[in-house]
Amino acid sequence: MTHKTSHTLAQLAELLGAKLVGDGQCEITGLAPLKTAQSGQLSFLSNPSYADQLKTTQASAVIIEEKFLESCSANALVAAMPYVAFAKATQLFAEPAMDAQGVHSSAAVDSTAKLGKNVSIAANAVVDADAVLGDDVIIGAGCYIGRGAQLGADCQLHSNVTLYHGVRLGERVEIHSSSVIGADGFGFAFDGSKSVKIHQLGAVLIGDDVEIGAGTTIDRGALEDTEIGNGVKIDNQVQIAHNCKVGEHTIICGCVAIAGSVTIGSYCIMGGASGAVGHIQIADKVQVSAMTLVSQSITEPGMYSTGTIQAKTAEWKRNAIRFQQLDSIAKRLKEIENSTDKK
Amino acid sequence: MTHKTSHTLAQLAELLGAKLVGDGQCEITGLAPLKTAQSGQLSFLSNPSYADQLKTTQASAVIIEEKFLESCSANALVAAMPYVAFAKATQLFAEPAMDAQGVHSSAAVDSTAKLGKNVSIAANAVVDADAVLGDDVIIGAGCYIGRGAQLGADCQLHSNVTLYHGVRLGERVEIHSSSVIGADGFGFAFDGSKSVKIHQLGAVLIGDDVEIGAGTTIDRGALEDTEIGNGVKIDNQVQIAHNCKVGEHTIICGCVAIAGSVTIGSYCIMGGASGAVGHIQIADKVQVSAMTLVSQSITEPGMYSTGTIQAKTAEWKRNAIRFQQLDSIAKRLKEIENSTDKK
Amino acid sequence: MTHKTSHTLAQLAELLGAKLVGDGQCEITGLAPLKTAQSGQLSFLSNPSYADQLKTTQASAVIIEEKFLESCSANALVAAMPYVAFAKATQLFAEPAMDAQGVHSSAAVDSTAKLGKNVSIAANAVVDADAVLGDDVIIGAGCYIGRGAQLGADCQLHSNVTLYHGVRLGERVEIHSSSVIGADGFGFAFDGSKSVKIHQLGAVLIGDDVEIGAGTTIDRGALEDTEIGNGVKIDNQVQIAHNCKVGEHTIICGCVAIAGSVTIGSYCIMGGASGAVGHIQIADKVQVSAMTLVSQSITEPGMYSTGTIQAKTAEWKRNAIRFQQLDSIAKRLKEIENSTDKK
Repeated sequence: MTHKTSHTLAQLAELLGAKLVGDGQCEITGLAPLKTAQSGQLSFLSNPSYADQLKTTQASAVIIEEKFLESCSANALVAAMPYVAFAKATQLFAEPAMDAQGVHSSAAVDSTAKLGKNVSIAANAVVDADAVLGDDVIIGAGCYIGRGAQLGADCQLHSNVTLYHGVRLGERVEIHSSSVIGADGFGFAFDGSKSVKIHQLGAVLIGDDVEIGAGTTIDRGALEDTEIGNGVKIDNQVQIAHNCKVGEHTIICGCVAIAGSVTIGSYCIMGGASGAVGHIQIADKVQVSAMTLVSQSITEPGMYSTGTIQAKTAEWKRNAIRFQQLDSIAKRLKEIENSTDKK
Repeated sequence: MTHKTSHTLAQLAELLGAKLVGDGQCEITGLAPLKTAQSGQLSFLSNPSYADQLKTTQASAVIIEEKFLESCSANALVAAMPYVAFAKATQLFAEPAMDAQGVHSSAAVDSTAKLGKNVSIAANAVVDADAVLGDDVIIGAGCYIGRGAQLGADCQLHSNVTLYHGVRLGERVEIHSSSVIGADGFGFAFDGSKSVKIHQLGAVLIGDDVEIGAGTTIDRGALEDTEIGNGVKIDNQVQIAHNCKVGEHTIICGCVAIAGSVTIGSYCIMGGASGAVGHIQIADKVQVSAMTLVSQSITEPGMYSTGTIQAKTAEWKRNAIRFQQLDSIAKRLKEIENSTDKK
Repeated sequence: MTHKTSHTLAQLAELLGAKLVGDGQCEITGLAPLKTAQSGQLSFLSNPSYADQLKTTQASAVIIEEKFLESCSANALVAAMPYVAFAKATQLFAEPAMDAQGVHSSAAVDSTAKLGKNVSIAANAVVDADAVLGDDVIIGAGCYIGRGAQLGADCQLHSNVTLYHGVRLGERVEIHSSSVIGADGFGFAFDGSKSVKIHQLGAVLIGDDVEIGAGTTIDRGALEDTEIGNGVKIDNQVQIAHNCKVGEHTIICGCVAIAGSVTIGSYCIMGGASGAVGHIQIADKVQVSAMTLVSQSITEPGMYSTGTIQAKTAEWKRNAIRFQQLDSIAKRLKEIENSTDKK
């Protein structure tokens, strides 16, 4: 979804902070990978293993590091971090998902809600009592903003997002559709025959520049707030339970499940569909591979995994049955070693 | 999110069914953990390993068992099950998520729907033909209640919940945002070249006192109903497929995936992100640990697990590669044992 | 949820393309499994292991293969593929989830949207600028159709579905509640201190006859479109990341997590809660068992698995600890073999 937009290479060099090598008047109308780019398009080389494609690409220009200049047949925008420059370029060619058009007549905005300048609220959205929306906030169709929720400037909620009462977002927070921030944490006290609900008295506090994908849920704290740090990026269908603290700039990939009262450090990467059991700590700069379960606190940076490697099911099954005998296997091996030692 | 509320300790003792030891006139304005509680706050001791904190807590009062009275410096509320008493206390200090304010002018309620006394329907919610809402039901903003759905007294649906046609809820059922009850079960007959849809003729039947988290889906049955028993508690992003039966008071943690036609007993606990394959039975009082896959019926109570324990990825990989050789390892070990026996 | 409907066996034989053996005037008012079917109901035998029930079933008629005619006491509808005939029968007895009733007065439909003949848009749905809805499209309550989205004829969206701008659906696509098609793919370039958003310029392209469950998310592509082939069936709470291509008639069960830029072949089955890491290819006709992680490309058809088999936790733990020693166990075994060989 690129809208009709066009920049000269000279303009792009300035906007992206890159050095122009080639024809500054060249018109760029879109972005594409090296392999499929056509005339009029800008591409980039980030992974050196694709460097060969520099010679054959049909792109009109390529964002590259200085060292690849010689092997590049197209115009070049030289940047220290081409992938970051490319990321900035995507912003120039992106079509906004929603048009900002003020408060739609069908939106139900409580008279006690406070709206900043230039706020947009789409059709059939609902803003409850005492909510506070900062300048330039955009609320998508069908969203629900609970009582007393606070949204910093430039927040953007896509359609059908729910913020429960008292949830607080920093500035420039983007939340995709069907996500739910601030539902009750899952807390019950068992009285011997039934579960008695522990009402969740905390809220959710989200920092600046956080992006949250679609269908993600972040629960309110039991007694204190659940907290998401500045710059954290959370993908789709992630579950973050009550009382968690997620450190700044951590990346949480799709379908991750974090149980209650987990503390995750800064600059971590939780791989897709990974999880963490409750009440553990994960240090800064930890990476967890896809579908890994973190069941114990991690105190050192590094990459962590669980599970087994894919195999044909018939073969896997033979080995999986042996897994059930592994303790016995280890003991029997030890016995043989002992008897061999004695000889 | 505690609203301004205050109770004397004497009042709390009566409301919680606890024995007061100390100053009955002491005003309590909120709840907090032992470690961070301040003057004016009530705390609790449930896990004996925190008993040391009884001496240093700044809480004005603590809910404890009789046996801890001596070591408690604060006022005390003595209860046989302090955690349950604390759960009851949270109710006294919780702010309601939604205000009950009658039927909002923007809600679309079909003229054939039957509404009990004191029903609240928030802005932009939709109630379809022949739906029946019991007394004191609260429907959040943007909810959709399908044709002929039935909700018992005191049910509460947070914003953007969908109930498909014919879904039936007992009394005091609470459902959090973006959950979907009664979508089609996933049933197809393969005709050799394509999948032919099996229309799902059953509905979903949910008992009394069930709580369902945010983003959870429970599918309608193929020919008969999917059934959730009384007192069941289901966390966020849980998937329960068609024809399942979940026994009373079972706990299903976040991100659990239950395939079709599974029967789960009463008083079970399905750990976070665990799953069950289709057409199996799980006995009463079974516990399944986090991210465990139940692939065979479980006939005895107890705790069950699958998977491996987290390790640094480099180390994990060495072992995971060996897992692929496990059947061979076991056979080779057996061979050595046999040859040793012969000697 | 069967509505009051009735067909004679003779009519059903014609509608299902089956051969009637027995009383063509027999009235059938519903469907049920062999075991619980009552008079007036139609059942089916697909799995031969239930053939015994043919003698005792109370069903008025049964859909069977020719070879079971002799052992069937009830009237029979003979079909080459009884399960497919049964699937077709469910359509005859199903109650539509939503009534098609034109455009509701509370729906917000942009003046530039193009609506085909006989389009239904339920209460509080929102259709944005330049969207195109084909003939007989049904849009549920609270749905959001983004700018320029295109829906082919006979598409059906249940309540609270979100389609982002530019998403394109083929004909006869059904999407269940709270699903989100076309949210931003999860792409960021790390600049050394923070993640810079890569705006997602592609869209999502969905073929004909695709069904998508509730709470599922399919992200828009980074530069090109994410593509779902004709006849693909996707269950609830599935996550399909940006740039994925899913081949025709593939089945994706509940809670599957597919990372970015994965290509899945045709006629595959991804078992419940399975996953795939990014940038891999999966060949045609591959089956992946429940909760399996595909971490490497699969080039041959067949069934693939990862994980271990459930065990009591105490027993599992002993073996899981030994898994951490598996490389050492294998080396020690090799050493013994070597020393034995030398003798």
